[in-house]
Amino acid sequence: MSASTSELASRVRGPVHVIGAGLLGASVGLGLRERGVDVTLEDLSPTSVALAADYGAGRARAESDPEPALVVVATPPDVTADAIERALIRFPNSVVTDVASVKLAPFEELTRRGLDLTNYVGSHPMAGRERGGAIMARADLFVARPWIICRDHETPAEALALIEAVALDLGSTPLEMTPQEHDRAVSLVSHLPQVVSSLLAARLVPATDQAIGLAGQGLRDTTRIASSDPELWVQILGANRRPVIEVLEAFQSDVAAFADALRDPEQQGAKRRIADLLSAGNRGVARIPGKHGTSERFAKITVLVDDRPGELARLLTELGELGINMEDLRLEHSPGAQIGFAEIAVLPEVAERAVADLVERGWRTL
Amino acid sequence: MSASTSELASRVRGPVHVIGAGLLGASVGLGLRERGVDVTLEDLSPTSVALAADYGAGRARAESDPEPALVVVATPPDVTADAIERALIRFPNSVVTDVASVKLAPFEELTRRGLDLTNYVGSHPMAGRERGGAIMARADLFVARPWIICRDHETPAEALALIEAVALDLGSTPLEMTPQEHDRAVSLVSHLPQVVSSLLAARLVPATDQAIGLAGQGLRDTTRIASSDPELWVQILGANRRPVIEVLEAFQSDVAAFADALRDPEQQGAKRRIADLLSAGNRGVARIPGKHGTSERFAKITVLVDDRPGELARLLTELGELGINMEDLRLEHSPGAQIGFAEIAVLPEVAERAVADLVERGWRTL
Repeated sequence: MSASTSELASRVRGPVHVIGAGLLGASVGLGLRERGVDVTLEDLSPTSVALAADYGAGRARAESDPEPALVVVATPPDVTADAIERALIRFPNSVVTDVASVKLAPFEELTRRGLDLTNYVGSHPMAGRERGGAIMARADLFVARPWIICRDHETPAEALALIEAVALDLGSTPLEMTPQEHDRAVSLVSHLPQVVSSLLAARLVPATDQAIGLAGQGLRDTTRIASSDPELWVQILGANRRPVIEVLEAFQSDVAAFADALRDPEQQGAKRRIADLLSAGNRGVARIPGKHGTSERFAKITVLVDDRPGELARLLTELGELGINMEDLRLEHSPGAQIGFAEIAVLPEVAERAVADLVERGWRTL
Repeated sequence: MSASTSELASRVRGPVHVIGAGLLGASVGLGLRERGVDVTLEDLSPTSVALAADYGAGRARAESDPEPALVVVATPPDVTADAIERALIRFPNSVVTDVASVKLAPFEELTRRGLDLTNYVGSHPMAGRERGGAIMARADLFVARPWIICRDHETPAEALALIEAVALDLGSTPLEMTPQEHDRAVSLVSHLPQVVSSLLAARLVPATDQAIGLAGQGLRDTTRIASSDPELWVQILGANRRPVIEVLEAFQSDVAAFADALRDPEQQGAKRRIADLLSAGNRGVARIPGKHGTSERFAKITVLVDDRPGELARLLTELGELGINMEDLRLEHSPGAQIGFAEIAVLPEVAERAVADLVERGWRTL
């Protein structure tokens, strides 16, 4: 990514107008401004606009500004449809997109209102942070993330090209899906894990300190996203309720089947049903792409690292000196321990040599 | 930890006898041998004994060997009670412990059989690896992990001291609990997360490639432990079925309540019930100790790292040069991306300076 070229700048005359100066809107503004695009900002809160402008995400829109080439609606999910409608009416010649994380509900709502949606192309950059607001905005927020674009057969090629140019300018990967495909996909890979993680973590509220004290890495990993913002998720889950209910019901029925088999272990085939569900988990996790998900392709080396500054850097530097490419890294600490573990994924063919070389240099491996 | 001193060696005359030469048994053997303790091994499979002995975990027990000072039963969970019974009968003057991950079921079974359990003290070192077997064994497997010891009022002080000495020799932290407390605690912090993660991952089996392609870090974290060994977990969950069923039922009832509220959003208080469950998740995850769990104590800095050898080492080295102590580190990669993110936890008071210094050195932060 170089800040000197822009896919978008060559395609648009007039500013890009961003409605909603929170985390996503301000990040879009910051990223496009870095590419030399003129960005105007609008928000119900004048403070938010001023703050985002101070951060360099754009400038407040003036009466004298020309109609924007593109409007990006980046409001909270529950007012997205209203904001899109107002933008389409106010700027009849602009292409309008939104970045909400649910795509069918606003589209259906706008259709129900009888609006001409030719100039509207919904989209969803799969990026975010645990906390929102313009203060958290970053020009690089969308780098290397999928940016889903929901076109239909009426979408003009030039409108589609505009949204793709925004996605590419911001460093993300544009992907086309229908709103239905998108909502079903995120209900499974994003919304279900959120609900499951939150409800699992909720079970820890009444636990004894003694029990919590035994928590290991498995519990930490499964509950990390349970720290997400409840208010935002009430809106997201409400807007995508049909697909979410469907995957939640399938999950709930698996939980019930599992508990049933456990409740009556002498029942014919009970142990087999438990084993089958656990094995299905093995197969499911193996399907996830990316470095963690393809862990079967890599061998893992676990190295003990003293919990003091510079030790991990020294380990990684020595790995580099040994010519060993690290495919992935996980750290694990136990509470109160003066030592941690670095789990390093490497290609299987170099694992044995890596361990031998590290041990020779005085590292302890598990 | 220094290999030159042993808590145990000063207390025992005669060898420590390990029954079951798999991951845990061989690791106990390796660790104690490093402390100069004489370790004898036994397994239903002569090959396993020979292999563990080759790795340095001990020697096969000979007829002429004296009665062991301590017997450690490290068999699969479903034969633990049988192995403990045989050991108590064969070695009436030895202290006998086991390392199974469920504590009440073997104790009840042995009581039912009318055995004198004065010399038996159950224990559970909370350590393991995704794959088992003596090949995976390590002397350091138990370092910095809790080692739960289930004494009762009849347990002789000397027997308890022996097990504590083993735990300390192996680098772990001894903790006393009743079998009931232990089983209830692990049902919540270990067994429930395993079942939930497996069932969540199982939902990915029928998913489209398109949906799986949108998987992010949240899904990866929540499903990582779903790659655990089904056969082992069928035994563990079966042996701890009562507490597991109880937490699973509470979890299932939360899932049902959540789906209900989502199904009928116009119902009085439906949105509030969803928000309350998500907020309980916030509170639950905040209770988890350790560096990840106490993330609110730390500020997070996200740095973009090119996906090429040495870049992460360079980043960590520079952090060291800047005098910034890293409290935790997470890596995140997107499939196909040439860039990754390193999320670094630091003390809040140094975060601003750390970002400024890193940016000055040419790093990009999010």
